[in-house]
Amino acid sequence: MRSQLSIVKIGGNVIENQEELKTFLSLFSQLPSPKILVHGGGKRATEISERMGIPAKLVNGRRITDAKGLEVVVMVYAGLLNKKLVAGLQALDCNAIGLSGADANAITAYKRPVKEIDYGFAGDVSSVNGEAIGKLLEAGFAPVFCALTHDGKGQMLNTNADTIAAELGIGMSPNYDVTLYYCFEKPGVLSNVEDESSVIQHIDQENYPQLLKDKVIANGMLPKLHNCFHALEHGVQTVCIGNLEMLKPNAQLFTTVTL
Amino acid sequence: MRSQLSIVKIGGNVIENQEELKTFLSLFSQLPSPKILVHGGGKRATEISERMGIPAKLVNGRRITDAKGLEVVVMVYAGLLNKKLVAGLQALDCNAIGLSGADANAITAYKRPVKEIDYGFAGDVSSVNGEAIGKLLEAGFAPVFCALTHDGKGQMLNTNADTIAAELGIGMSPNYDVTLYYCFEKPGVLSNVEDESSVIQHIDQENYPQLLKDKVIANGMLPKLHNCFHALEHGVQTVCIGNLEMLKPNAQLFTTVTL
Repeated sequence: MRSQLSIVKIGGNVIENQEELKTFLSLFSQLPSPKILVHGGGKRATEISERMGIPAKLVNGRRITDAKGLEVVVMVYAGLLNKKLVAGLQALDCNAIGLSGADANAITAYKRPVKEIDYGFAGDVSSVNGEAIGKLLEAGFAPVFCALTHDGKGQMLNTNADTIAAELGIGMSPNYDVTLYYCFEKPGVLSNVEDESSVIQHIDQENYPQLLKDKVIANGMLPKLHNCFHALEHGVQTVCIGNLEMLKPNAQLFTTVTL
Repeated sequence: MRSQLSIVKIGGNVIENQEELKTFLSLFSQLPSPKILVHGGGKRATEISERMGIPAKLVNGRRITDAKGLEVVVMVYAGLLNKKLVAGLQALDCNAIGLSGADANAITAYKRPVKEIDYGFAGDVSSVNGEAIGKLLEAGFAPVFCALTHDGKGQMLNTNADTIAAELGIGMSPNYDVTLYYCFEKPGVLSNVEDESSVIQHIDQENYPQLLKDKVIANGMLPKLHNCFHALEHGVQTVCIGNLEMLKPNAQLFTTVTL
């Protein structure tokens, strides 16, 4: 019988807010194993970057990671934020093990080719080491991934956390039934951005084209949903989108995305 | 038959010097498995601390780790330096996995009690999780430990890298024949600090008292040797002290310490 695997992605904002962090750690630690956590942390990286006199570079809202900027994200993501989560989970008897894509050669990426924009040390995932991650899961560990990969030649790379969660889901799907949880501020995908009760409970290949056609889904959600369908088309079973509430055992208000 | 386990400790200076780092990564990757790396990094932490406007606090040459200072060492040790080593080893096909004491609940410590001096978030090791570390070694990983522990209640703690190496050696000794390698600048323990060829090849319980009595061993070496005998008395088989040369297959000039 195939095991169920939960992969939960949270943004850096959850880690910065003491109350939310406490809630999240408690909910994650109570999820059944095997499970994987993926976290972002861009805001904190920007703040520490500025304190070090290295202004963050953004082009069209996307981070440009130069050599100095990469040092900062490696420090903040793999150091500060990752260890805060790992130590917090250990305190709740969840046997967390913090990882970047370099650790255990878990996630390899290639440096994004320079076209109109040079994103610097940004990595696009080329492979997920399902065997190594599987060994950690089987040994009873809960991997906690920060949003960093490596190129296999000694270079760390900055990779979007949503993408890492989706690629991990795809990479683990040959051996696990994967459910991917994208936690964000809203209780789900809303049909009316102004109304938090307007959660669309289910999105699939059948109603998605109509939702797009009727422009029901807010612009900001489109890349997220694109990511979801990409994961589903490549082996992930279910994607859930919502706020932390969705991790509660009897949660009902969130969006489920399936093929 | 019991496995041999090599535990190698390097200072932060090896990581900062490109040439030395390259030499070290190559030598470490060629050591037979199972193996563990432990690294320091205080100098770099001090430098980044100052860039962030957080002056490093030292009392009698020992670092005082306040809350802000702890954030910096977690960033620098577990982030910047640890991932540099892990990505560098992966490039040489050594399946490194970076760890702090919180990861896999590997090393638990207690916050040093306040006596004359309040060292802040400094941790004295209370237990090494030999079972968890053993699982990682058996899965074929080479753990790379930074000099951080946790208290099991969510708090990261700053712990001396020499001590971590010794405690890991002791903690793994019930199941492995442990050789501990302390790499530093000198080719070994010298009988004449001015003369690098004056390496004392072997130190044990028999000649150690005489060496102490004759004041042959330089003051700076005393805590290091104290650490060595502590490890040997608690299960470690052999301690080797020297520079990176000692990791070469046919190395001859270094100091071996046994009971």
